[in-house]
Amino acid sequence: MRSVILSIGDEVLIGQVVNTNASYLGSGLFSLGIPAEKIITLPDNEKEILKEFRSAWKNFDVIVVTGGLGPTHDDITKKCVAEFFKSEYVLNEKVLKHVKSIFARRHIQMPAVNIGQALVPSAAIVLENKAGTAPGLLIDKADKVFCVLPGVPYEMKYISEKGLFPYLEKKYRNKVKRVVKQKTLHTIGIGESLLAAKLGDIGRIVRKGRDYEVKLAFLPSNYEVRLRITVSAATLPKANSLVNSTLKLIKKAIDKFIYSDDEGSIEKTLGALLKKKRLTISAAESCTGGLIASKLTDIAGSSAYVMDGIVSYADKAKKRLLGVKPGTIKKYGAVSRETALEMAVGIRKRSDTDIGISATGIAGPGGARKNKPVGLVWIGYSDKNITFAKDFIFTKDRLRNKDAMAKMALEVVRRQLLSINN
Amino acid sequence: MRSVILSIGDEVLIGQVVNTNASYLGSGLFSLGIPAEKIITLPDNEKEILKEFRSAWKNFDVIVVTGGLGPTHDDITKKCVAEFFKSEYVLNEKVLKHVKSIFARRHIQMPAVNIGQALVPSAAIVLENKAGTAPGLLIDKADKVFCVLPGVPYEMKYISEKGLFPYLEKKYRNKVKRVVKQKTLHTIGIGESLLAAKLGDIGRIVRKGRDYEVKLAFLPSNYEVRLRITVSAATLPKANSLVNSTLKLIKKAIDKFIYSDDEGSIEKTLGALLKKKRLTISAAESCTGGLIASKLTDIAGSSAYVMDGIVSYADKAKKRLLGVKPGTIKKYGAVSRETALEMAVGIRKRSDTDIGISATGIAGPGGARKNKPVGLVWIGYSDKNITFAKDFIFTKDRLRNKDAMAKMALEVVRRQLLSINN
Repeated sequence: MRSVILSIGDEVLIGQVVNTNASYLGSGLFSLGIPAEKIITLPDNEKEILKEFRSAWKNFDVIVVTGGLGPTHDDITKKCVAEFFKSEYVLNEKVLKHVKSIFARRHIQMPAVNIGQALVPSAAIVLENKAGTAPGLLIDKADKVFCVLPGVPYEMKYISEKGLFPYLEKKYRNKVKRVVKQKTLHTIGIGESLLAAKLGDIGRIVRKGRDYEVKLAFLPSNYEVRLRITVSAATLPKANSLVNSTLKLIKKAIDKFIYSDDEGSIEKTLGALLKKKRLTISAAESCTGGLIASKLTDIAGSSAYVMDGIVSYADKAKKRLLGVKPGTIKKYGAVSRETALEMAVGIRKRSDTDIGISATGIAGPGGARKNKPVGLVWIGYSDKNITFAKDFIFTKDRLRNKDAMAKMALEVVRRQLLSINN
Repeated sequence: MRSVILSIGDEVLIGQVVNTNASYLGSGLFSLGIPAEKIITLPDNEKEILKEFRSAWKNFDVIVVTGGLGPTHDDITKKCVAEFFKSEYVLNEKVLKHVKSIFARRHIQMPAVNIGQALVPSAAIVLENKAGTAPGLLIDKADKVFCVLPGVPYEMKYISEKGLFPYLEKKYRNKVKRVVKQKTLHTIGIGESLLAAKLGDIGRIVRKGRDYEVKLAFLPSNYEVRLRITVSAATLPKANSLVNSTLKLIKKAIDKFIYSDDEGSIEKTLGALLKKKRLTISAAESCTGGLIASKLTDIAGSSAYVMDGIVSYADKAKKRLLGVKPGTIKKYGAVSRETALEMAVGIRKRSDTDIGISATGIAGPGGARKNKPVGLVWIGYSDKNITFAKDFIFTKDRLRNKDAMAKMALEVVRRQLLSINN
């Protein structure tokens, strides 16, 4: 099975947009055992697009096209599809109803131009797009699949997951020679090399057989290290069992550092843990500026354990809202173990939650003090039994620091609740 | 002048690596007036690579290839170049000296395999790579330029900036008929199609002349729409004046919706505005869960105008921390104009800031009530002269809602400070 990805849009060619759609589709097609053998980015130019359609249709079994499906004048992909498949436009009532409903629920009159989005080439199967207005289009002909998706990433992803990938999986299940399964384990606050050391031989694992291969990859990014297991095998059951046996080996060595093995975030893992233990939490934030609370509330149902949070950016606010003693800040500074401890106790008591968490540090780029570099953060933890603070030093980049500091604060709570001491 | 970018590497095809190299090169070639008309990603496969080399050499004036120059076995680009140009390998002493020095500095014995990096096709000019071991290779023949760069981003960038771009600029200075200038305008809270409607004919603007072209593109993402003006003209002054005249036309129609025309974020624009007006702000957040404060504090120096923030997730917290009247929540609900107003006034007074902003809504996926759908948010604003609240309805997706609601809250403040009423 040979597949190709065609990305349409001048904005990609001139480097205004990075082509993340192609990576997403590339990895999806790869897992389906229909790896992309080529990715081609094209201008918003009818002649060029049709030329590539012809050669793609000739050389590949699966063609996935992204971009140029919106309502405005510069979106010409659908026109090219209709022409390429000599297919008339038909009005798709279901799509029209959906597009109308999107404007209706926002109490906005649907502009006439959007009616066009309900016009689809008769040759195409419509793939529902609940994430936006432009539907996906799929043509299944001569045992080939030609699919067109919007360029907006979350719409493209929605249609791929709900429509395209399941369709391809079903259609080609018996034709693909290799099935590829991947599993990614998430860790935070432990370096790649330390992780590798703890894994020992497992960390170097690359098992090969006549009809299977197991690979392990370390993927570090901003103080998180993802461990990716990639298994290719002849059948799905075989692949799954290889993934599971490898997973067991790894967990045996570093289980406590793995906060998720299902693409979950630290806030998702911690949220589930808090729910299970029926604990409530509140955050007192300085350098993270609300990001800890924001991450906690990214999880649906977080109202079960998040009561409130305080962003005490100014010292004044630390005193007024959290009861940090003026003397403490004066003597040790706002970025100190002592201030972090008082912030954590203060938020826990004032919010009347089981756990209080705090973060005070220097996000940068400015603000460094003697022995207090940019990237330094003190994270405080307090519950009715114990109160402590830990310090970490991250990068010199403000946004990366805020993100790493907030995640680390959540990881500190996770480790405490599971009595993981390291 | 027509150029093409060839990216070589299986890791890009299977989505393990996002092709940021292509965007970097695309924007570089674009501003040189030699825009890439195609970007093609290829596998590490000699046959495929040579095939693309042939068609690229036939159809384009400038060919830029990245990837496959490292020392390892799967890096076959150089081999293909030598074969394609029927060119022998010669040992380049300068490169060898450089590669040796890199290992020497790290006190590492240079592996024999790295000697190969000093072997270059005789037809090629060597472009120095101070950022790594693999040099860039440039073939200038038949008035065409064929250039090969390493795939490691910072090495690719180094050689492009120091070697490739200056070479192209010099060579084609008098041949490039077109200078290209771009301007991107940022809007929020107004849809692509609505924007197009407000722009009318301007929205369809693609003016062409014998020696110039003006294009307008809509780039939507989660309730933000970027408007990109692209002008190509014979001379820089001509291009600039066309950008400015187009900008004037657009601003005349939708000026109030444009929060930035220099790639800035809404938090950056608002931050500068608050600083200029010497105003302070504090946020009371329910559905956004801290994201408004986090965005505000994403900007370095925000401590000049951000004092603190309250995440009043639970109703209890709205009453205790913000002084929202129990009766108000009981009578109108937590998601209501009345509650938003009391939250905004409450945070302003308690934090003693010039402006208080509030957000209370339903991020979803659950929590919808009669006449209160998922995606509904009430944003409250309060300063010493005026207090008001506006409602908006966004999507059904929790994270997209939080992001859109937080940005919209900042936009509401921006519009108020500039007395933009819509």
